[in-house]
Amino acid sequence: MFNKPRGTRDFTSEEMEIRRFIEEKIKSTFETFAYREIQTPTFENLELFTAKSGETIIEELYSFNDKGGRNLTLRPELTAPVIRFYVEKLKMEPKPLKLFYFGNCYRYDRPQKGRYREFKQAGCEIIGTDSSEAYAELIAMAYKILKNTGLNNVELRIGNLDILSSIFNNFNLSKENQKYITPLIDKALFEDVYNSLIDFNINNKDAAALTDILQSSNLEEIEKLIKDNNTKEEFNNFKEILGHLKESFGISNFKIDFSIVRGLDYYKGIVFEIDAPSLGAEKQLCGGGAYELVPLFGGNKTPTAGFAIGFDRTILALENENYKFPIKKLDFFVIPLNSDMIKKSFEIANDLREKGLLVDIDLLRRGISKSLKYASSINANKVIIVGPDELKQNSVSIRDMKSGNQEIVKINKIK
Amino acid sequence: MFNKPRGTRDFTSEEMEIRRFIEEKIKSTFETFAYREIQTPTFENLELFTAKSGETIIEELYSFNDKGGRNLTLRPELTAPVIRFYVEKLKMEPKPLKLFYFGNCYRYDRPQKGRYREFKQAGCEIIGTDSSEAYAELIAMAYKILKNTGLNNVELRIGNLDILSSIFNNFNLSKENQKYITPLIDKALFEDVYNSLIDFNINNKDAAALTDILQSSNLEEIEKLIKDNNTKEEFNNFKEILGHLKESFGISNFKIDFSIVRGLDYYKGIVFEIDAPSLGAEKQLCGGGAYELVPLFGGNKTPTAGFAIGFDRTILALENENYKFPIKKLDFFVIPLNSDMIKKSFEIANDLREKGLLVDIDLLRRGISKSLKYASSINANKVIIVGPDELKQNSVSIRDMKSGNQEIVKINKIK
Repeated sequence: MFNKPRGTRDFTSEEMEIRRFIEEKIKSTFETFAYREIQTPTFENLELFTAKSGETIIEELYSFNDKGGRNLTLRPELTAPVIRFYVEKLKMEPKPLKLFYFGNCYRYDRPQKGRYREFKQAGCEIIGTDSSEAYAELIAMAYKILKNTGLNNVELRIGNLDILSSIFNNFNLSKENQKYITPLIDKALFEDVYNSLIDFNINNKDAAALTDILQSSNLEEIEKLIKDNNTKEEFNNFKEILGHLKESFGISNFKIDFSIVRGLDYYKGIVFEIDAPSLGAEKQLCGGGAYELVPLFGGNKTPTAGFAIGFDRTILALENENYKFPIKKLDFFVIPLNSDMIKKSFEIANDLREKGLLVDIDLLRRGISKSLKYASSINANKVIIVGPDELKQNSVSIRDMKSGNQEIVKINKIK
Repeated sequence: MFNKPRGTRDFTSEEMEIRRFIEEKIKSTFETFAYREIQTPTFENLELFTAKSGETIIEELYSFNDKGGRNLTLRPELTAPVIRFYVEKLKMEPKPLKLFYFGNCYRYDRPQKGRYREFKQAGCEIIGTDSSEAYAELIAMAYKILKNTGLNNVELRIGNLDILSSIFNNFNLSKENQKYITPLIDKALFEDVYNSLIDFNINNKDAAALTDILQSSNLEEIEKLIKDNNTKEEFNNFKEILGHLKESFGISNFKIDFSIVRGLDYYKGIVFEIDAPSLGAEKQLCGGGAYELVPLFGGNKTPTAGFAIGFDRTILALENENYKFPIKKLDFFVIPLNSDMIKKSFEIANDLREKGLLVDIDLLRRGISKSLKYASSINANKVIIVGPDELKQNSVSIRDMKSGNQEIVKINKIK
């Protein structure tokens, strides 16, 4: 016997119905915001990801050489491929360009609940604008998408990396030291952050102030720490984005959170995350923000922002909320009472299929009682029994599988 | 600048709309026949494919080792993974089990028109029945799916490998020699087939008779060459399938073709192919038949049949027929006349989005004339201009981008 590879999944038809349902919800919300779907290959040249994230990323990639000796890799995420596509082919398109996509991604990771080696993501980029209303629309859309899947309980948090970095600079924290504490901030290990700051010879008062900022939602307190004009402008933009979110999109239940640092190092300015608190340690459903990647891939400096939504975790979160996914039921199961009835049975089935109904038919000549049992096991709503007596009257027997009621119906009246 | 890997493709939003349209057509036809969607991982253990197709297949695979030293490979086709899934998890499901799926497949092949290193396939399996009506339904469904995509000109050909092999045996052609001429038959090189038969010491008359059979659609002629009872039974089943196709499914424009040998060697019994003649050398859109794979993967002997449809070639064939794919147009583009109008403009846009309409809005504060130009470039049906004077009357100006007509409309009457 063969097994599926470790960390991967097979999806049953029940699971696929849920996945299709969620995909359609996400897709249609993107479309109402005038985003349009694109797709890139499943594997890319390895350098695309090392250029963006450094050589250390190779550790968690599925990389391989093709027979031409090229270094290829299964994509670990979708932003780099999309920006590669933009620079390679789409950069002359009218701006802003609103793109969304679905795709499987691959990470050689320890498999655990909500983390797989092959996982599906939805995502988007908006290319060519950095207006505060554009960023507000992006964040509002991410929130809207998750709400539209059916989720009740999600938490939106918004931060800003430029402002955070500028405050760090004001406290004379070197870039290297900022880099060191970033993973600690990301994991919300604020005591460790404080201790590291002390180790970096920051005085107690400043270390406490910095650690406080990371846990504060108080904009006035944060504003006091901003010194230079560029950052003041960024701070005003930040407030404008939050204002738009409240006034233009009616979203006010977000939290200001300067501890959002994102795992990837090409983000700048606005960043945001959306969590499903019910998921515990792996609660993040969505992460995004503004970033700079186009010049690295050979294009002109262009404002870009986007986000990614974890498809599997969104489904896990819905399951945790006991969300009732719709179940597709078979409309009819057709049973020929004997082999002379087969031809007519198929005619009836095919006519109903032409109308778009979901129709199955006995393909094992197994007789009425076994067929009824099968029809019940595959969740048929109704069974059509095609027998010689009824057929003489151009009729069939139709049994409602829920009520058990059976009635004789003219063939041209079946619906 | 980075490029996409050789033999792979990026899909623009125009291309994705076509691909989504075709996928939906294929999916909904499968569903009317009571097939249900499943999905398997993008990569599998290498042995899954070498067990089925022998070591030679490695040449055309993208295979790699993961960090645990496992031999993995990007799947070259979808039947083996699905049967692996069946044996691993689905074998207790009620029979017959009707499964369909979409998936990208990978072959290290010379890229050419209609052939890519990453390509999408649709496919299905029916597991647990070998009745002639089941096979007729399968073939009819394949034909129906391709017709439902919008294709006019397709050719269905049906053959039978058991019957062909039995006739070869009757002419004392060894299994080894049968294997030798199979690729020649597959490529319709009948002169080479004849010459090979002569080389195998088959006499002229028999060699000519055999070569004729491969090009004949005459069932009576073929029946004369059948000696043993098993094959006679298979021949009667074959005729019954063809009868069902005509009588129960109204499909009679197929061709009997005993030169269908399929590239893969696990097929047995009924086989069929559907071509789009407009595509020339790479004309095959669909191939399938009955096969035996469950025991090889560790399950009990179980009748199985299925087919695969090439997604890319189906689209190429539709393009050759000048099929008009539907184009999704933006319903509204909203332009705030000045920055005081932004909040109200978003409110209007968001209300329309809530109704499921596709709505974009100026995110660059670029003024009315540039915004109108952009709205036209992204194919908006109508433009909503939000200005202070109209707003006092709770109204906006709406311009029809096709006719150029502009009128003033109450905000709550926009639709």
